[in-house]
Amino acid sequence: MRSEDMQVDTGSRLVTDVTDAAERFVRDAGDGLLNVFVPHATAGAALMEMGSGSESDLADALGTLLPRDDRYTHRHGSRGHGADHLLPVFVSPSLTIPVREGRLQLGTWQRVVLVDPNRDNAHRTVRLSFVEG
Amino acid sequence: MRSEDMQVDTGSRLVTDVTDAAERFVRDAGDGLLNVFVPHATAGAALMEMGSGSESDLADALGTLLPRDDRYTHRHGSRGHGADHLLPVFVSPSLTIPVREGRLQLGTWQRVVLVDPNRDNAHRTVRLSFVEG
Amino acid sequence: MRSEDMQVDTGSRLVTDVTDAAERFVRDAGDGLLNVFVPHATAGAALMEMGSGSESDLADALGTLLPRDDRYTHRHGSRGHGADHLLPVFVSPSLTIPVREGRLQLGTWQRVVLVDPNRDNAHRTVRLSFVEG
Repeated sequence: MRSEDMQVDTGSRLVTDVTDAAERFVRDAGDGLLNVFVPHATAGAALMEMGSGSESDLADALGTLLPRDDRYTHRHGSRGHGADHLLPVFVSPSLTIPVREGRLQLGTWQRVVLVDPNRDNAHRTVRLSFVEG
Repeated sequence: MRSEDMQVDTGSRLVTDVTDAAERFVRDAGDGLLNVFVPHATAGAALMEMGSGSESDLADALGTLLPRDDRYTHRHGSRGHGADHLLPVFVSPSLTIPVREGRLQLGTWQRVVLVDPNRDNAHRTVRLSFVEG
Repeated sequence: MRSEDMQVDTGSRLVTDVTDAAERFVRDAGDGLLNVFVPHATAGAALMEMGSGSESDLADALGTLLPRDDRYTHRHGSRGHGADHLLPVFVSPSLTIPVREGRLQLGTWQRVVLVDPNRDNAHRTVRLSFVEG
């Protein structure tokens, strides 16, 4: 299995597009499955359209689903950080994508993204693994 | 890797059962993992029980989680379509299922379904990929 | 593909840690992908931090997302059991984890857990499958 740990600077972004790096990783890889794995307890991986406003829509939806207030038992860091610890249960940190002839078999508008609501840490790892099939 | 693009007519259904087609795809395939991938930005894949009312319960739950109103920045097509663009973040378009001796290793009540809240497009693709193990 | 059905006693717990059993399963397995699959229609699999309060925070969040009341069409067993039937749509029963040299490539705080809101059945199966890569 070919694998690589990619460093991602998320800055203050909730959603960071990592599609280009994933595409580079599988180029020349043939056919198989790419696993995109986020080895953090407060972030997830997803497929979504970028650049049309869904990033801020997602921030609003998460604010309703997992409000950043004092309700959480798990409490440290910034206010509402307990919400970040629940995010990976709903937005899994593991995502598997089919690859053919070295290309991700994504739909036209699908982008591979890191979803990271945690503002206490702007540096994240995304672990790419390719299993040939 | 064996793969196939399956065309699915979702009509006006939120939930479409694709289990039988997935079973046919893996028959004679031996042991391995089946990846069910929906190459669309407004649909997801899931495992759930069908035929006992959970389909309409899911419609209601999504209506609360992602209301179909004018709150979205991403706005085109039908009213509330911005909600559809968030669906794949919470209901991933990628699902992996173990296969043994050409049979999906599902639980008794689990069905493989396409979750498609988008009423603007009744024709969808489901991409099946099998990696032998 | 090597696979094993593991029996888990969930008692009255919403979240049950199965990391140690998953680690034992992949020990000596080399490199590849581990698929953790829950063959039940009312449970899911997830990665989350354990022991810092997120278990009860998750119970509260699910109580808001999927209230245990009489709103469900799918109705049998305990009150609100219809909610359990929606859980796997939001917390997928399938999870894929990269493995290198027989070790799960998890982040420091990530634990592999079974999420089971169903109090009517304390005995669950978790299906482990390893595909070498």
